[in-house]
Amino acid sequence: MTRVAVVGIGHSRFGRRTDVNIGELAFESIKQAVDDAGVDRNDIGNVVVGSAGGWYEESLPAVVVGEYAGLSGAGTMRVEAACASGSAAVKAAYNSILSGETEVAMAVGVEKMTEVDTPTSVELIGRAGSYTWEFENYGMTFPAYYALYAVAHMNEFGTTQEDLSRISVKAHKYGARNPLAQFQKEITLEKAMRSQMVAWPLKLYDACPLSDGSATVVLASEEAAKRLTDTPVWIRGVGYSSDTANLSRRDSYVGLRAAVDAAARAYSMAKVAPGDIDIATAHDCFTIAELMAYEDLGFCKKGEGAKMVREGETELGGRIPVNLDGGLKAKGHPIGATGVSMAVEITKQLRGEAGNRQAPIKRGLGLTHNIGGTGHYAYVTVYSRD
Amino acid sequence: MTRVAVVGIGHSRFGRRTDVNIGELAFESIKQAVDDAGVDRNDIGNVVVGSAGGWYEESLPAVVVGEYAGLSGAGTMRVEAACASGSAAVKAAYNSILSGETEVAMAVGVEKMTEVDTPTSVELIGRAGSYTWEFENYGMTFPAYYALYAVAHMNEFGTTQEDLSRISVKAHKYGARNPLAQFQKEITLEKAMRSQMVAWPLKLYDACPLSDGSATVVLASEEAAKRLTDTPVWIRGVGYSSDTANLSRRDSYVGLRAAVDAAARAYSMAKVAPGDIDIATAHDCFTIAELMAYEDLGFCKKGEGAKMVREGETELGGRIPVNLDGGLKAKGHPIGATGVSMAVEITKQLRGEAGNRQAPIKRGLGLTHNIGGTGHYAYVTVYSRD
Repeated sequence: MTRVAVVGIGHSRFGRRTDVNIGELAFESIKQAVDDAGVDRNDIGNVVVGSAGGWYEESLPAVVVGEYAGLSGAGTMRVEAACASGSAAVKAAYNSILSGETEVAMAVGVEKMTEVDTPTSVELIGRAGSYTWEFENYGMTFPAYYALYAVAHMNEFGTTQEDLSRISVKAHKYGARNPLAQFQKEITLEKAMRSQMVAWPLKLYDACPLSDGSATVVLASEEAAKRLTDTPVWIRGVGYSSDTANLSRRDSYVGLRAAVDAAARAYSMAKVAPGDIDIATAHDCFTIAELMAYEDLGFCKKGEGAKMVREGETELGGRIPVNLDGGLKAKGHPIGATGVSMAVEITKQLRGEAGNRQAPIKRGLGLTHNIGGTGHYAYVTVYSRD
Repeated sequence: MTRVAVVGIGHSRFGRRTDVNIGELAFESIKQAVDDAGVDRNDIGNVVVGSAGGWYEESLPAVVVGEYAGLSGAGTMRVEAACASGSAAVKAAYNSILSGETEVAMAVGVEKMTEVDTPTSVELIGRAGSYTWEFENYGMTFPAYYALYAVAHMNEFGTTQEDLSRISVKAHKYGARNPLAQFQKEITLEKAMRSQMVAWPLKLYDACPLSDGSATVVLASEEAAKRLTDTPVWIRGVGYSSDTANLSRRDSYVGLRAAVDAAARAYSMAKVAPGDIDIATAHDCFTIAELMAYEDLGFCKKGEGAKMVREGETELGGRIPVNLDGGLKAKGHPIGATGVSMAVEITKQLRGEAGNRQAPIKRGLGLTHNIGGTGHYAYVTVYSRD
């Protein structure tokens, strides 16, 4: 069976993008990715669009995106896996190459969330929880869900509000080096700690923003990749899992079972261990989520996430740098785009093109960790330079 | 590379299903399909849910469906390709087996459209047209779009309103033999012709209804299929294409280019010709759509669709029976479920399990034709007993 590589990447500016509609926004990253891959658009056999939808007017984003980019005629569909929609799109495009359907496929992640007001957004995201039992009956929204995780982690392992704020400070530190990030300003620990309480112990600076944005990767079979580029980045391990949306049915509140499962599958398929990873992105929709990710991914033992933060192990220069693009927190989180944006960042890092936020690449291995809902979906993907 | 077979099928009753929520509705067909396949649910590695969404409260149907059916832990995502979402789900599940991801995968199509009122539904479907130019600017809705096709076909080929009504009479004739159909009552040509005008020349009986329903197929690799069943139905050709949503940019109004392309791909992959097909389902969201399908699929020459109807060539006993399950018109059209429902019907027919609507199976070949939007998406799939 052939191998599959990322051969082209594109990324729009994330933020409040009232200047473009969904087709134009997607096109910004599609154009870059097609140019970067040096591929003829007629050779792209399959276009998978990752988008949760519901925020913007066009209810069929795949058609709108494909048509505006001049890709009509290719196979196309939208995929949705909540906040992991982008990774689901990458996996579907990857499968379409492995299955022999096409030599070249594209995954586009796009979302335009700021067309609705914030309360509506909070409701739309809340519906992504356990709809009947927790959203409809208890009025749970996402800050409240992740606050439960934070409280459990603080209670069980002595993690502090300051530890969480440190993750926010780190996100803003690297967001300031990413010209496409929604927030490009460093913040102090004091500013994060004193920010408005949203759902105790989570404060404003513990939460990612609502964002518009798009990201695109062009994938190719081994044969096509060797023809198209000298710097392919190979998809080496694809892990995914799902779990109940119902927090009352979870066994643990200090980690996500689906993420642990997905990571185990990805490591096993790629035949690598957590310690082999040079650079990672983690799904930090809230700071507690990044901290749990360290543990779920095996970057440290369960309960030692806060220690990793305190000791700077996930900073540039640390043992495994995480979210050097600013993460969801500072880069922004346009839901469908996020998973693809992670693939773009890891590709940039493995190519050595990340500029003043470049991680040292020793083994040539990168990882993306993308969660949907409160851990309903988890996608972990291992990328490799070789 | 392995071959992929349908090894289990399930189908809920279509219609107005206020008695169930989306998870329960999906479960009706999932349970049947799992029982029919005789597979352990832990062996199902991937669950793809086809659903357009927007009509019902749960905005993440894949998680809700997976959880209610006890399938948490499998890979899962929702796919959407407008009214072809079900076929996109079948293709994604098929690819997940071909790619080596899993030996057994499931495609579930589900929609619950009657939770909103009819005007809202018409608006939701209208948004699936060319959003900016035709829906927002001109207020086009789907009956209006398909009326344009009908007028063009009548003008160019002398097709009549009576020809269209005959397709409706045929749909109801076979719907009356399908205990899961939304409408199980035969109608007369006169009744169809005298029904309320919706968008000239399309009348109430030219249009499919709004429906709730689900359908499921379990797919397996060649090795697993041979272990699981004595009556596998193989997926032999998968064709798909896409086109502009903007009718003003189409070259022709008497057929769908995407359907012609998709059919060519499916026939070529399966190495069969249109005349080899024993039994087909066609996407008859409006009667004119079924008539165009005959021509787009090569069942007759361009312009001769009406002749096929007049001569009963697509009836039981005719040259190529089409929509012996009642079609979208009488069986119902729960958007995400439709493509999977077609796969279920063709599997039943090729197995010889279709009872009093069983087609004679000579070459062992069946075909599904599933359209999204006004021809933005087309999926044509060829199934084979051998």
